[in-house]
Amino acid sequence: MSRGRHQLLVDTLRRFVRRGAGPHLHRVLEKTRAEDIALALEELPPREGRMIFAILLETPARAAEVVAAYDHSQLADLMHGLDAEDLKPVFAEIQSDDAADILAELPSEFAAAILEALEDEDSDGIEELMQYAEDTAGGIMSTEVFKLDKELTAREAIVALQESEDAEMVFYIYCVNEEGHLVGVLSLRQLLTVPPATQLRESMVSDVISAPVTMDQEDVAKIVARYDLLALPVVDEFNKLVGIITVDDVIDVLRDEATEDMMLMAGLGDEDIALKSTASAIRARVPWLLAGIVGLMGAAALIRAFETKIEQVAALAAFIPMVVGLSGNVGVQSSTIVVRGLAMGQLDVGRVFPAIWDEVKVVAGLSVVCAIFVAGVSYLIGGQNWQLAAAVTNAVFISMLFAAVVGTTVPLLAVRLGIDPALATGPVMTTTNDVVGVLIYFLAASLWLQL
Amino acid sequence: MSRGRHQLLVDTLRRFVRRGAGPHLHRVLEKTRAEDIALALEELPPREGRMIFAILLETPARAAEVVAAYDHSQLADLMHGLDAEDLKPVFAEIQSDDAADILAELPSEFAAAILEALEDEDSDGIEELMQYAEDTAGGIMSTEVFKLDKELTAREAIVALQESEDAEMVFYIYCVNEEGHLVGVLSLRQLLTVPPATQLRESMVSDVISAPVTMDQEDVAKIVARYDLLALPVVDEFNKLVGIITVDDVIDVLRDEATEDMMLMAGLGDEDIALKSTASAIRARVPWLLAGIVGLMGAAALIRAFETKIEQVAALAAFIPMVVGLSGNVGVQSSTIVVRGLAMGQLDVGRVFPAIWDEVKVVAGLSVVCAIFVAGVSYLIGGQNWQLAAAVTNAVFISMLFAAVVGTTVPLLAVRLGIDPALATGPVMTTTNDVVGVLIYFLAASLWLQL
Repeated sequence: MSRGRHQLLVDTLRRFVRRGAGPHLHRVLEKTRAEDIALALEELPPREGRMIFAILLETPARAAEVVAAYDHSQLADLMHGLDAEDLKPVFAEIQSDDAADILAELPSEFAAAILEALEDEDSDGIEELMQYAEDTAGGIMSTEVFKLDKELTAREAIVALQESEDAEMVFYIYCVNEEGHLVGVLSLRQLLTVPPATQLRESMVSDVISAPVTMDQEDVAKIVARYDLLALPVVDEFNKLVGIITVDDVIDVLRDEATEDMMLMAGLGDEDIALKSTASAIRARVPWLLAGIVGLMGAAALIRAFETKIEQVAALAAFIPMVVGLSGNVGVQSSTIVVRGLAMGQLDVGRVFPAIWDEVKVVAGLSVVCAIFVAGVSYLIGGQNWQLAAAVTNAVFISMLFAAVVGTTVPLLAVRLGIDPALATGPVMTTTNDVVGVLIYFLAASLWLQL
Repeated sequence: MSRGRHQLLVDTLRRFVRRGAGPHLHRVLEKTRAEDIALALEELPPREGRMIFAILLETPARAAEVVAAYDHSQLADLMHGLDAEDLKPVFAEIQSDDAADILAELPSEFAAAILEALEDEDSDGIEELMQYAEDTAGGIMSTEVFKLDKELTAREAIVALQESEDAEMVFYIYCVNEEGHLVGVLSLRQLLTVPPATQLRESMVSDVISAPVTMDQEDVAKIVARYDLLALPVVDEFNKLVGIITVDDVIDVLRDEATEDMMLMAGLGDEDIALKSTASAIRARVPWLLAGIVGLMGAAALIRAFETKIEQVAALAAFIPMVVGLSGNVGVQSSTIVVRGLAMGQLDVGRVFPAIWDEVKVVAGLSVVCAIFVAGVSYLIGGQNWQLAAAVTNAVFISMLFAAVVGTTVPLLAVRLGIDPALATGPVMTTTNDVVGVLIYFLAASLWLQL
């Protein structure tokens, strides 16, 4: 839906709500996709959004689609004033993985009341999912997986498929043995092309790619991307098939993880800042800036310690930003390569030294190029003082190499310590580079200018 | 495949190649997934990789899978020494979208020879795809789309499906009229559940989501993510069905676009730097560092212009990194929010002023918090000189707000000018903030210290 059509929908909904034009509203809601309704509702004032949601509740399956597509963190607002009984038919229609995610975002008493109200067959799957950590295979899987006994024939399988209702989008038929262990897979299309009397076990592929429930969601995404899968079965420790992760969930994981990495590296916290209020955005961003101040405080104290040198050669002050800035830029480059390389699975945590060495080689080349420019620039701007130019050039060269090592090492070490590499990178790296850059600069100045 | 199994495969392949153990090699290659073979080949020395590829060529369908999964930019190396006739059977088996991508990476004469060698039915689709810009719907679609006349019955459709070979993973049946216009869609599962004599047009959904060939690949990815689609049909200007984009292509787009944004923002060029040689990595990274030097040069010249002030109060030099560093950090935060917001479709390019206003509100809050800390820190480190502390605090406050405005405006303006926002952000923003930060600092110092 284009921007223009989206705005039109928002305006139309508002107009009809204000006019109390029930039949018109019904018609618009009927012929609009659930995803588009969700996006429009998010933009309406809360009271109007709730009035439209009340109309949607008349058709629970439809309301369920809208709820699943609605920004989960704002659902509590949309559902304000409703009780568990009102929402029960809606939650009965939502896939278990979405339902578990949504309930985790609602106030806990309200979520418990909804679970209580649901039939056991619906709540069991949701409660099971809510046990798993949010960012694991268990946390993103759905329990509605379409599985068949491997002894069934293709004909029986097609009948079972026609009768199934609850399962998430089916494209693979997972075959299990009598203990429920995952033993094979075949695609829907293969099912159509084998003779109807063939048993599934004869035509299935027994080498199935699967994920254990505890696998990290980033690793799940890498597997799905690498083997071009539409769905990945999830098994417990005994290889029992317990759930399925579909490719749409993986797309969400990839988008969220990339956002999280970029946000963390810029010191914006680990959640999507665009969705936050002014106050919570400030709270999320302050820590990183304060950590930055600590480093800059160190740099300031260090410069004061070298103040007699500045009193002797005032032009020294002019190149402090040059040294600190260039090493900062290189540090960001190095750590970005490592953080993204880890996310893309191109970089291996076990190979720290080769990674550092590769980066040092590149930065050595970059340092030579930059040093040549800096030598000229600092000679001219620094008042044709070749000793000063030598000190600046020397400091730039060494601090860039140092920043490359820090920028590569910090995220790799973070992974080994079980810390998110993107989180560790921002503050630790910036602070270290600021302080060490200034130190290297004044040591070089002492040496070349014999201060 | 785990890291350990991957290393085992690489070692096994090497050992067998060196021993010339042909039958063993055949057996290993047969029972290993194509994606895993590709990854292992990428790690072998070129000569050994080529020897294994020669064996794979005996089974063209298998070789095609390996080629499609192999890093395209390194295929020329793997295919070194082979001619178009050797590769013809392989390219005949590769999906047209992958083939077009691969040929674009090969030396142009070699690519032309392969196209020449292929049968018309194979080369036509590839040549058609090569006309479209790489980052559009046309550039990532495959021409092998499974489409059926809307007048067919469900029974006829199933037969057609069983006989089809070439089409990319089929999960939706696209229905066309006699002019080839896209008029409806139904899922494979729906096809199984309708009575065999029903015509497709009776059970199809006629409101099909599709993409025009010229649509930007980022917009394609947004649509697929928003509506949880497995495939998106691509139509020409007359609504004629010309291709299909499958969800695995969208996953690649999402990963590539996120990588590109992170790389551009860190000044690493627009391609995946992890795959580059030392020399080309240096070439990609130098421009941004040199652009950075220009800004730092401006800052240096400016500091020299204010040198008499430093000669009067040498402690002024100590807080230059504080002012420049904090405004730099805020600038990175602001621009990251905008760049990622644009990529996620949360931010609207048409609403520049509301976006700037939102960010200024947050940064105003951050500036107050930071200013309080900076006031204390600079009073203590600056030798209890309250005028100096006031100048530093004042400069930090104003330069942070300025950086927020620049950090938000530059990427939004870039989009309006048709430049990648991530590309514009790095150099322009850093340079401006460095120079303006220093200027604000010395103006504040002149004012408070009456220099």
